[in-house]
Amino acid sequence: MTTGSRLLGELIDALRCLPGVGAKSAQRMAFHLLEREREGGLRLASALESAMRDVGNCTRCRNFSETPVCSLCASPSRDKQVLCVVESASDLAAIEQATGFRGHYFVLLGRLSPLDGLGPDELGLPLLAERLGEGEIEEMIIATNPTVEGEATAHYVGQLARAAGIRATRLAHGVPLGGELEFVDRGTLAHAFGSRQSLS
Amino acid sequence: MTTGSRLLGELIDALRCLPGVGAKSAQRMAFHLLEREREGGLRLASALESAMRDVGNCTRCRNFSETPVCSLCASPSRDKQVLCVVESASDLAAIEQATGFRGHYFVLLGRLSPLDGLGPDELGLPLLAERLGEGEIEEMIIATNPTVEGEATAHYVGQLARAAGIRATRLAHGVPLGGELEFVDRGTLAHAFGSRQSLS
Ligand SMILES: [Zn+2]
Ligand SMILES: [Zn+2]
Repeated sequence: MTTGSRLLGELIDALRCLPGVGAKSAQRMAFHLLEREREGGLRLASALESAMRDVGNCTRCRNFSETPVCSLCASPSRDKQVLCVVESASDLAAIEQATGFRGHYFVLLGRLSPLDGLGPDELGLPLLAERLGEGEIEEMIIATNPTVEGEATAHYVGQLARAAGIRATRLAHGVPLGGELEFVDRGTLAHAFGSRQSLS
Repeated sequence: MTTGSRLLGELIDALRCLPGVGAKSAQRMAFHLLEREREGGLRLASALESAMRDVGNCTRCRNFSETPVCSLCASPSRDKQVLCVVESASDLAAIEQATGFRGHYFVLLGRLSPLDGLGPDELGLPLLAERLGEGEIEEMIIATNPTVEGEATAHYVGQLARAAGIRATRLAHGVPLGGELEFVDRGTLAHAFGSRQSLS
């Protein structure tokens, strides 16, 4: 589009990498920032650069972290006896926001999907098995998504728990089948979390 | 919110400076960028920084520009005899996208609003008067918004044109194309009725 400014055009293009942002809203955002919010735009630039460059994964739970061990793993006030296994860091954030869970997490960064080359190693399952072998964990809550691949992953992860003699539980039904955890409303997610059931 | 990463939390906060982006979508955007779009995120960081720092205003038309004269003013292929006066650079972009206009622009960067300290000087009207005095312009299209302040601004700007002996025109008001009469506001309908035109 013609705006008279190359940098403005480039900003409008670049904003389209944000999910849900089309041509029209990218344009609205760029003008808003230039006209009324340059400070905020600069703060966003610097937050983006730091996060894109420096956020890696926690060596203990694979959650997003800019330090070797994330602040959830490092917290002395969380319950070391319960480990919640999730597919993604956004699922972790959704559980933190919706429930009163105060235990630890393990983030798979995906779900078993042989066709996409995602097997046990890619999901960090050797690291998870090692963790289960440390002897502190008494319950593993499996909070993978209720999709076919999520269920297969839950089954596989449940076997690791059984091998380690650890009770495995699964989120209760109530999470809509075929849905993604991060888009489930808080009430439903909190209920499902509270009614988790033993894997038989 | 708890994510385990300070930088991720700061990114989520910073994204909220974008118009129409609340807590939930900021979170979704941040996770999307970290999980799937780090390249795009870095490109956005750099586009934002360049635009926020380097985009100023064209010395000739006050449109956004990182060069002293914007590319629209510098273009040799645009018609120097028609000047379209708009309130903002986003109005300029809307006209560029919607119409086949190939003349020049002048951007007021606001509208007359004495209570907000916006008078003729703040709107660059001395610069506009100087421009009108150059003798190249034959028609000035006044495309301020149809609000009370926009109309007052149009009236004032029209007087500058008259003083310079230049024909001034105003965007037509009326029923929007594709609109239903029963849903058009009374003021617009009354105006459209009063300004009815002969069928040719
Ligand atoms: Zn961690
Ligand atoms: Zn210009």
